[in-house]
Amino acid sequence: MRTQVCIIGGGPSGLLLSQLLHRRGIDTVVLERRTREHVLSRIRAGILEVGFVNLMREAGVADRMDRESFVHEGTVIAYGDEMFHVSFQEHTGTDVIVYGQTELTRDLYDAREAAGGTILFDVDNVVINGADTDAPFVTFEQDGRQERIDCDFVAGCDGFHGVSRQTIPLTVRREYEKVYPFGWLGILSETPPVHEELIYSWSERGFALCSMRNANLSRYYIQCSLSDSPEDWSDENFWEELKRRIPSEAAEKLVTGPSIEKSIAPLRSFVTEPMRWGRLFLCGDAAHIVPPTGAKGLNTAASDVHYLYHGLAQFYEEKDSEGIDRYSERALARIWKAERFSWATTNLLHRYPDQSDFDLKMQRADIAFLRDSEAAQKVFAQNYVGLPY
Amino acid sequence: MRTQVCIIGGGPSGLLLSQLLHRRGIDTVVLERRTREHVLSRIRAGILEVGFVNLMREAGVADRMDRESFVHEGTVIAYGDEMFHVSFQEHTGTDVIVYGQTELTRDLYDAREAAGGTILFDVDNVVINGADTDAPFVTFEQDGRQERIDCDFVAGCDGFHGVSRQTIPLTVRREYEKVYPFGWLGILSETPPVHEELIYSWSERGFALCSMRNANLSRYYIQCSLSDSPEDWSDENFWEELKRRIPSEAAEKLVTGPSIEKSIAPLRSFVTEPMRWGRLFLCGDAAHIVPPTGAKGLNTAASDVHYLYHGLAQFYEEKDSEGIDRYSERALARIWKAERFSWATTNLLHRYPDQSDFDLKMQRADIAFLRDSEAAQKVFAQNYVGLPY
Repeated sequence: MRTQVCIIGGGPSGLLLSQLLHRRGIDTVVLERRTREHVLSRIRAGILEVGFVNLMREAGVADRMDRESFVHEGTVIAYGDEMFHVSFQEHTGTDVIVYGQTELTRDLYDAREAAGGTILFDVDNVVINGADTDAPFVTFEQDGRQERIDCDFVAGCDGFHGVSRQTIPLTVRREYEKVYPFGWLGILSETPPVHEELIYSWSERGFALCSMRNANLSRYYIQCSLSDSPEDWSDENFWEELKRRIPSEAAEKLVTGPSIEKSIAPLRSFVTEPMRWGRLFLCGDAAHIVPPTGAKGLNTAASDVHYLYHGLAQFYEEKDSEGIDRYSERALARIWKAERFSWATTNLLHRYPDQSDFDLKMQRADIAFLRDSEAAQKVFAQNYVGLPY
Repeated sequence: MRTQVCIIGGGPSGLLLSQLLHRRGIDTVVLERRTREHVLSRIRAGILEVGFVNLMREAGVADRMDRESFVHEGTVIAYGDEMFHVSFQEHTGTDVIVYGQTELTRDLYDAREAAGGTILFDVDNVVINGADTDAPFVTFEQDGRQERIDCDFVAGCDGFHGVSRQTIPLTVRREYEKVYPFGWLGILSETPPVHEELIYSWSERGFALCSMRNANLSRYYIQCSLSDSPEDWSDENFWEELKRRIPSEAAEKLVTGPSIEKSIAPLRSFVTEPMRWGRLFLCGDAAHIVPPTGAKGLNTAASDVHYLYHGLAQFYEEKDSEGIDRYSERALARIWKAERFSWATTNLLHRYPDQSDFDLKMQRADIAFLRDSEAAQKVFAQNYVGLPY
């Protein structure tokens, strides 16, 4: 088999890149290790920057998103029993939208299918060959058969544990990492969200986040110990703990119900450099991870897709390799900014095991400064809605 | 002896408070443990916020300062071989001025002397008695004689090691502290400053600061190990190390010369709460210390003097204790903001022994964000020139 761009990974970045390239007449094959059903069962991010929304529109897959998503013109920050609002509209003239990753992945699958795009599921033992030559090819197994795809370029959209990053030799690759000393215990419940916007809540007992997917699907998180497991937390205990960590005004309005999903995610910051090696390009979680505070995970993937899509279009349409040659540099410049914001927001809102009383005072002073300073709110809002591509 | 306000400590805060109260007809006695010459030999801060300047004017001691000080409308931040400018004027409409602590202390002594103010030098064994009663008195020894001053109030302006803070019982007092794992090695030299504004310089080798007192008196600092002593550093070694830590453009212009003072200061953040106990009020270093990054030390003292001066004037002129009753709360609210800025700026610009590669990347991203973001520069400038009283 032959294609122009072989895309490893059928999650949102791989699919979005495939669909965008398709619209410019560039042929792709997407390889996905799992089934479509498995990919769609992952419950992930729900906050999309305007840059992401624009890419979805450019890809022609924004109709349902535009109908069903919710616009958030700001967010709430809580500390102890107090809350304040940071307006994105006022400080940046733009918003974010709430639209679950599951939904947009479904839209992308539908669009690729309608366009007759090739997505191979259940592929195994993917190997990227000759990425540092002019003739790369990808080998894999499907239904017990060994297959090979020759291509011009490989896009590694296969996540943190995927093969793409590992393909770049350690002599070239440099990795930066921070593992935080806590996780997020999250539940999904078919209840109306406690508030129309997200509430990011600092508390003596640890961080909590009130989020949502739609008008009857709430997503709540509480900071937990890395040694906890979801089975340690009954629904009842989760709700009780959440109520203790959000202002009483919000706790009183909280509608609780059975969880339909419950899981713990560790928090990690991770970046690999470079994001290009020969004809292999890393995209999204394959190259970087952010802690979820600040909702940058999926949005950083979209930023990579933006640069790679434009680079590849420039290459095929104008025979100009400038965009792909500068892909790593441009993508990383924006990634480090998002890493900075995610790290700083995590530091701002979480309890750390080794915090001194002075450290706690600094954290409270940081939050108070954000509450009181227009300029600090502008900095927060600009980062939250996404810095320009 | 009897006075209305007994001021412990003849440094700039005590003298400024004394002079301001004098102008409102309130009588003070200032007690200083050392000689006037000793106080004037201390080489300290040189950057004054507009709030401090206004207090000096209100105290009628600003003539020489207004003639001889230098206006800085911004500052330079350097990292590696690059530099950028943060304008205070543009972001806040105001400036800071450069005028050495030694000079303004001299002006204050001259003013107190001209007005016939009582300043007792070389006093020993100061004890604050009955601060929690309506009749406090201060005892001390001078020239071998035991003395006593009865007063309405005691202002503790006697610095970090003074007796005032220690007078507040530990059952009432709460202290917050952070000791940084490095110091500043500073030299004073009779050379023209390398640049017309301050240069705050991040470097792989550690922080450096190019500062000044006047057109022919430069003050330079380099981050050093806490185990270093000034004797470890010859002038030549100091200049060589400084040049390595500032952009080459600046290093090439640096005029070196013999140091006329060389010392190492540890970096510490410290706050005590409350700042009032009965009829005793803490002011300046007696209550709080900031690391010098951001030039807030003397300016936080001025902020305390502002609140205490107005509180005492309100008490004597309007028989209203509201200002002194809320002194601790108001002073601390502003102090914590200055502590936050000093801590954050220290974190931004210093090398830490335990920094991971990721931490270093975050530090660089923080500096790059400050370089690129108007809103972040505004936040920096607002804090640097001083938040409103």
